[in-house]
Amino acid sequence: MVDSCHKCEACTHGLEQYCRERPTLIYDSIDRHDKMRTFGGYSEKIIVTEKFVLRIPDGLDLKGAAPLLCAGITTWSPLRHWRAREGTNVGVIGLGGLGHMALKLAKGLGANVTLFSRSPGKEQDARRLGADNIVICTDTEQMASVNSKFDLIIDTVPYTHYINQYLPSLSLNGTLVFVGLLGNLEPTLNTVPLILGRRSVSGSAIGGIAETQELFDFCGEHGITADIEMIKIQDINEAYKRMLKSDVKYRFVIDMESLKTTGEK
Amino acid sequence: MVDSCHKCEACTHGLEQYCRERPTLIYDSIDRHDKMRTFGGYSEKIIVTEKFVLRIPDGLDLKGAAPLLCAGITTWSPLRHWRAREGTNVGVIGLGGLGHMALKLAKGLGANVTLFSRSPGKEQDARRLGADNIVICTDTEQMASVNSKFDLIIDTVPYTHYINQYLPSLSLNGTLVFVGLLGNLEPTLNTVPLILGRRSVSGSAIGGIAETQELFDFCGEHGITADIEMIKIQDINEAYKRMLKSDVKYRFVIDMESLKTTGEK
Repeated sequence: MVDSCHKCEACTHGLEQYCRERPTLIYDSIDRHDKMRTFGGYSEKIIVTEKFVLRIPDGLDLKGAAPLLCAGITTWSPLRHWRAREGTNVGVIGLGGLGHMALKLAKGLGANVTLFSRSPGKEQDARRLGADNIVICTDTEQMASVNSKFDLIIDTVPYTHYINQYLPSLSLNGTLVFVGLLGNLEPTLNTVPLILGRRSVSGSAIGGIAETQELFDFCGEHGITADIEMIKIQDINEAYKRMLKSDVKYRFVIDMESLKTTGEK
Repeated sequence: MVDSCHKCEACTHGLEQYCRERPTLIYDSIDRHDKMRTFGGYSEKIIVTEKFVLRIPDGLDLKGAAPLLCAGITTWSPLRHWRAREGTNVGVIGLGGLGHMALKLAKGLGANVTLFSRSPGKEQDARRLGADNIVICTDTEQMASVNSKFDLIIDTVPYTHYINQYLPSLSLNGTLVFVGLLGNLEPTLNTVPLILGRRSVSGSAIGGIAETQELFDFCGEHGITADIEMIKIQDINEAYKRMLKSDVKYRFVIDMESLKTTGEK
């Protein structure tokens, strides 16, 4: 985000991402002042409202810090809002850009972290990133073994998927938070596990500015960055194709230096 | 409820309704001790674990107090859990047995209370029961006028219905709680309003024993009972037919004295 209304209840409570008049996003928004379209990371220079400037701690690798502004804060905000800490059981659905940050940050906060995955092949990587356990969600025995376990499940999957199977693994008063899927749940939600355990499903969008600074400071202290692969701007179409095949661990970062050599390749 | 396991986390936190081993319900459960089926309000005598005995305050009309044990506590528990009080905006969907108690109790707690209804015909009754406002949910202008308003919406409708229309009327961090519908949401839930306002959908079942006593005490202080129509057991089939047509304001109560005269009619 580069701006918001600064006046609504959300903005005055450090929740600019929920601005009643919608925040000005760094990419593909219309700027509140000059009415021009924002171009995000493809820009050479970005004009930001002073309040929206963030400080990256010394020593934090810049290219690994870049995705903290999206995948990082999007998982950090629900972890903090739902108070993940030592003793909290956190589940993470999906191991992509968001999921790998959720594992790192939940672990950094001291929580017990479990990755739900469809394939056992991700176990080694998940453990390296911070997962204490892996549960194969197609294995009914494994799913039954985590019944009522999780205080918080962060669902990072960006496409529609079967969520009813995860609800019984929420604890009494537990919450499953969507951070990836913007759209209809198919198949539909069943209310029974909600009613029989006062469980909730919720959603969360990026994070506020103060919260984002908090994340940077936390990552500086704990040496946490995203696992990234740096590419040249010239290779962006290839990177896009690989992203569609989930062939990225776990975020592409464009080296802006390569912009200067456009046309040379 | 007449019993529960007494040992699980829910039971030891006064949330017997969420007992990990399921509470023994007063109706159509298998008793933990004698393994016999429970018959609820159709019984002449009921054996209850001592902890599950409740005290009805002096002066509270007994026939109007009876539904507090179901419609009353089912709406009281979410009102209390989500902290409805003076200044809270509470929405209620549906005006039946549960809905009419939700209006009375939310109003009793000092909240600003709105009934969502499909038909304007319910306005007078809703206001008498405690509603400050009525919003006709098929009127898009009226619905737009309550955008982001409600901290809590209690959805009492027991059959599947279109819930996505209500989600934008939840405030930032607001929650819609299902207390009536046990089943699939049709049409399905859309996650966008959840994500764009950290809104939640949740569920709630009756209430714990301490909470039920709290409700009775509150109703004793505020003179709140259910609006009921007392019937004889002999008229139960007729009452059942009327209930299916929503022709009851707002709960039938069976006069157990009439049991003694069975066969005389």
